Amino acid sequence: MKETCRYKQTRRGAGIGSIIGAALVLYSSSAHAAPDGETQFILNSFSFILWGALVMWMCAGFTMLEAGSVRTKNASVICLKNIGLYAIAGLAYFTLGYNLMYVDVGGFIGSFTLFYNSSAAEIALLSGDEAALASVLESDYSTMSDWFFQMVFVATTASIVSGTLAERVKLWTFFVFTIILTAFIYPVVGAWTWGGGWLSEMGFQDFAGSTIVHSTGGWAALAGAIVVGARARKFRKDGTVKNTPPSNIPAVTLGVFILWLGWFGFNGGSQLAMSSALDVVAMSVVLANTNLAAAAGVMVAMSVSRPILGRVDLLACLNGAIAGLVAITAGPDIVSHQLAIVIGGIGGLISTAGVKLMERLKIDDVVGAVPAHLFAGIWGTIAVCFAAGGQLSVQLIGILSIGAFVFTISLIIWKLLDLTLKARVSPMVEELGQDVAELGIEAYPEFMIMPDSEDVEDLKS
Amino acid sequence: MKETCRYKQTRRGAGIGSIIGAALVLYSSSAHAAPDGETQFILNSFSFILWGALVMWMCAGFTMLEAGSVRTKNASVICLKNIGLYAIAGLAYFTLGYNLMYVDVGGFIGSFTLFYNSSAAEIALLSGDEAALASVLESDYSTMSDWFFQMVFVATTASIVSGTLAERVKLWTFFVFTIILTAFIYPVVGAWTWGGGWLSEMGFQDFAGSTIVHSTGGWAALAGAIVVGARARKFRKDGTVKNTPPSNIPAVTLGVFILWLGWFGFNGGSQLAMSSALDVVAMSVVLANTNLAAAAGVMVAMSVSRPILGRVDLLACLNGAIAGLVAITAGPDIVSHQLAIVIGGIGGLISTAGVKLMERLKIDDVVGAVPAHLFAGIWGTIAVCFAAGGQLSVQLIGILSIGAFVFTISLIIWKLLDLTLKARVSPMVEELGQDVAELGIEAYPEFMIMPDSEDVEDLKS
Amino acid sequence: MKETCRYKQTRRGAGIGSIIGAALVLYSSSAHAAPDGETQFILNSFSFILWGALVMWMCAGFTMLEAGSVRTKNASVICLKNIGLYAIAGLAYFTLGYNLMYVDVGGFIGSFTLFYNSSAAEIALLSGDEAALASVLESDYSTMSDWFFQMVFVATTASIVSGTLAERVKLWTFFVFTIILTAFIYPVVGAWTWGGGWLSEMGFQDFAGSTIVHSTGGWAALAGAIVVGARARKFRKDGTVKNTPPSNIPAVTLGVFILWLGWFGFNGGSQLAMSSALDVVAMSVVLANTNLAAAAGVMVAMSVSRPILGRVDLLACLNGAIAGLVAITAGPDIVSHQLAIVIGGIGGLISTAGVKLMERLKIDDVVGAVPAHLFAGIWGTIAVCFAAGGQLSVQLIGILSIGAFVFTISLIIWKLLDLTLKARVSPMVEELGQDVAELGIEAYPEFMIMPDSEDVEDLKS
Repeated sequence: MKETCRYKQTRRGAGIGSIIGAALVLYSSSAHAAPDGETQFILNSFSFILWGALVMWMCAGFTMLEAGSVRTKNASVICLKNIGLYAIAGLAYFTLGYNLMYVDVGGFIGSFTLFYNSSAAEIALLSGDEAALASVLESDYSTMSDWFFQMVFVATTASIVSGTLAERVKLWTFFVFTIILTAFIYPVVGAWTWGGGWLSEMGFQDFAGSTIVHSTGGWAALAGAIVVGARARKFRKDGTVKNTPPSNIPAVTLGVFILWLGWFGFNGGSQLAMSSALDVVAMSVVLANTNLAAAAGVMVAMSVSRPILGRVDLLACLNGAIAGLVAITAGPDIVSHQLAIVIGGIGGLISTAGVKLMERLKIDDVVGAVPAHLFAGIWGTIAVCFAAGGQLSVQLIGILSIGAFVFTISLIIWKLLDLTLKARVSPMVEELGQDVAELGIEAYPEFMIMPDSEDVEDLKS
Repeated sequence: MKETCRYKQTRRGAGIGSIIGAALVLYSSSAHAAPDGETQFILNSFSFILWGALVMWMCAGFTMLEAGSVRTKNASVICLKNIGLYAIAGLAYFTLGYNLMYVDVGGFIGSFTLFYNSSAAEIALLSGDEAALASVLESDYSTMSDWFFQMVFVATTASIVSGTLAERVKLWTFFVFTIILTAFIYPVVGAWTWGGGWLSEMGFQDFAGSTIVHSTGGWAALAGAIVVGARARKFRKDGTVKNTPPSNIPAVTLGVFILWLGWFGFNGGSQLAMSSALDVVAMSVVLANTNLAAAAGVMVAMSVSRPILGRVDLLACLNGAIAGLVAITAGPDIVSHQLAIVIGGIGGLISTAGVKLMERLKIDDVVGAVPAHLFAGIWGTIAVCFAAGGQLSVQLIGILSIGAFVFTISLIIWKLLDLTLKARVSPMVEELGQDVAELGIEAYPEFMIMPDSEDVEDLKS
Repeated sequence: MKETCRYKQTRRGAGIGSIIGAALVLYSSSAHAAPDGETQFILNSFSFILWGALVMWMCAGFTMLEAGSVRTKNASVICLKNIGLYAIAGLAYFTLGYNLMYVDVGGFIGSFTLFYNSSAAEIALLSGDEAALASVLESDYSTMSDWFFQMVFVATTASIVSGTLAERVKLWTFFVFTIILTAFIYPVVGAWTWGGGWLSEMGFQDFAGSTIVHSTGGWAALAGAIVVGARARKFRKDGTVKNTPPSNIPAVTLGVFILWLGWFGFNGGSQLAMSSALDVVAMSVVLANTNLAAAAGVMVAMSVSRPILGRVDLLACLNGAIAGLVAITAGPDIVSHQLAIVIGGIGGLISTAGVKLMERLKIDDVVGAVPAHLFAGIWGTIAVCFAAGGQLSVQLIGILSIGAFVFTISLIIWKLLDLTLKARVSPMVEELGQDVAELGIEAYPEFMIMPDSEDVEDLKS
């Protein structure tokens, strides 16, 4: 258990106030009336479960975003993938992931023990042993409150992958990859950083996970996109790109609003404590910056979408919000709000241009998740250098090492899965749609849907 | 007022820590720095209103689930039923229900007085009488915070009924039944249990309401389904069952995510206090178990849907999440998370098989609410015996007596309503759809909808 | 900075307990165990950011409500307007609005300085200067927590305008108006009232903004509707009114549920503190009343929609919920819950009749926002007189002066915008729909949409 506490300091160290936090509490308790130990424990634990619940809500956001972005013939399967990945992430992280990430972390990885549980002192307290209270309060928060908060972060990482690979990755293959991602890949990255491993020792800063969560998801998605390949006729032989508009724009928009709301929990809760004035001051700064960065992402994407994409583009604006959020996530605790606007705004520029870049590279990313989560995540992690005193070399080492690890291992696993289970559905399934072919249902069975004329012609020939 | 306090101990007694809780506070206040009385009051009250707000959100979840599950021609009416039932539940529970459930409860029922209000001390405090503070703090929480939290639970019960009976129950008949359910039936069940009545005295355990809320809703829905009958041609003369797929799968999925999120408030808030380390430790355990049980419900339903239903079934997975949540609701405060997974997983199995059973019994339940809320609710209430020390005999007495009461009285009321107001719309209204026939609108007026060929043929003949 | 504190007293003074609040804290700290200063700071700040996050969620509610209310051909543009207005509101309020509203407010307006920031003491604390804690705690809450809470209120005001003017106002013109509304118009109204200006000095009471937020939005929308004009053929030459039903009823319903949930934050957070028993007692009362008023709005609208509109009208019920919420917003802290029901119920009556009145006046309000937000807002502000001791003369002066200011300046600005940028899209764009014409996309590109026969005929001729 002691080992699991280390990351706290590491993680907070990356934020505002760092070690001073602890010192302050000691200092201030004599100088003024401060919360008592049990109240602190309550507030910290509550912060984890409340903000964690908002992060769970982000899964609904990804689901709406993706279900609205795909063609109607694949909308049911993407719903199943999303509820399935959230279920898998929770179970896998409980079974193995959390222990790999936070328990007895050496430089590179934690413990391979199975299952995570409340501390012995907490179980004693819950069983009626009043004397256990003192031991319980040696921790700053309850065991499972922290587990809950960390668990919803894993799910976020997995959500990123489903969007990029929508409309052609096989259901079961995707689920197997999700197990590996959430039980192993993400926890290893987490062990290096928030778990107190080698990157943390070097001073790598990533407050709520621009790299640790979002780029990790982005790299895994990118590897998958390369192995699985583009959707049929997305990149035509004549070099043109087929337009594949979202089937349900209000659903996509709702998804982005959900994500925006959930991000207040994602970044705000990553202060990891709410037991001092310092904590809530920081948390308030974090929420303000998170909102301003997202707003700037929207406005910049709106402004640059015409020159870059040829029109005012709603999807660019929505993705710009996400990119702004991702970009600020590495350092939302900066005191300069103008800088938060700049960081988020550049995020919106990057995601908009990034969509164009992905098309050039002929990599098919259905929802633009790689630009928004990976590209903007890299930017946000670098931005910490001038915004919050990060060291450029260390930040780059973190970005590159995590990128190399996640991308390589993901590529290998996707390849292995392709050789065994097949990564991609058959052309016939792709034409029919995964909903009918894999699930035997339609997302909107009563609505008359226009056939994709290009697909029809292709099938005829 | 004093009487309303009784249930608290009763209800907490069913959970972790029970009476020790109070003892602990006394003990610990000398042994270590604990929250002062006013801070405890604040935290407890805040816990009620915050988690209660999340439970209110579950009504939106039921609405989306049901609006997506029905055919498009009935989607508007189900929206009206849901916003209407939430409005009715609040007004009816304020007018009578709360007093019947919690005020001066004898063995079987509380007070028939009208309206519930802030305590005299609170009103004095709000009016500027500082001296009233001490009296206010004799309670552990503010009066209306508790009312608010209890009120959203009633609404949940009513939400269950609307789903089962969708597409054929008359709008006004449904509303009249909702008034009786929320002003009388549910409060009586509540008085027996959380209100401190005879089942509570026996030691019946139901932490957040697997039986009290979910089975009660399920029994009322089942009685209604029997009286109202199945939708036209749902069960054909040749013994086959007509497939009636949801009209909007992303809406159903969104509904389930909303319910999952809201359930953190439903179960977490049912700790009924947040003023001690014990409380937040328990609350954290509750959230972790709630999530794990739902996840297991999804995965088990996914696994068994192919053998049971003949295909990987998205709806079974979504309903499995709900069944997992319902199953853990009677005892989410257990310290064994593996057991929470088992309980939720079996819930997912039950709901999937239950859908098949309902078809065999030729009972038409549009959203599978009876399997998910009633069957899984019974299971969860029994599971408390091995997971949290419940007595099997007592649990069975609770399940059976509540079942007998709710089912019988609901059956009588549905019958009476059928004889007076009619329970069911006319065949012509059912064919046209309730939206056009009862409201004069369509849910999606611009979208071209495919006619139900079977319905059309039937109308011709 | 000191000046920004004034409004707090002003604003709380309008609510329960007023100045006694502060006195109580002093008094009670000797009489009983009360929260220490730092705990109070934490709870107050947390209240702002948490409830503020729920208010942000209301923007998603407006988006769903509006996207479901417009015809499908304009659903994408309304999504863009909504995410854009939320982004603009945050940036404009940060850049100028907050300072105009709260910093160094004289009688009429605050400071024209740019940007708002954490206090110097907070920055020092965040930078590690432990000695700054005492200065930080001189405030009752963290600087940016208050900013965040105030910012989401501005966005609500802007959201009201987009709904009324949907389907014909030009995208960029709307955004320019939004900048002016959120950077200047709303902040001036706010300075007069919550900022401590002349209306506040007179004793004008508006707890959470029936007038300050909702009527302000309503007046701005009304002015816009007059300048922009009605949608083509909405009011036919023969005096009949064209029926323009919502295109997606479940989306509208979801929007209203989101608003209802968000309103708990809107009204509950407007207690502006959570650091005493008095505060949470008031907050609990506020949530109970908010819910009851909305419920009454639904039920009254349901009852009167048949005589007024000729049928049981789902939209009237949904708008009735909003009107009930708006009506109670000026005084949700009243101790008589029956009165809250009456106030909300009359709100539902007003919004239903108001829709009819707007049709008579031939003013085209796509979502009925003017009846729900302006008419019910006026009613709620007057209701404070008998429900919470407001002075009728003062309340009327507030309603009229704010109405005159907002309506006049909005009218001028809409006129100027019409002369320069054009306020309205061309007839061809209106027929084609703004989605295709302004954004080059469709909201539901795969669904077959029925052409509006009247439009088609009109285009032919």
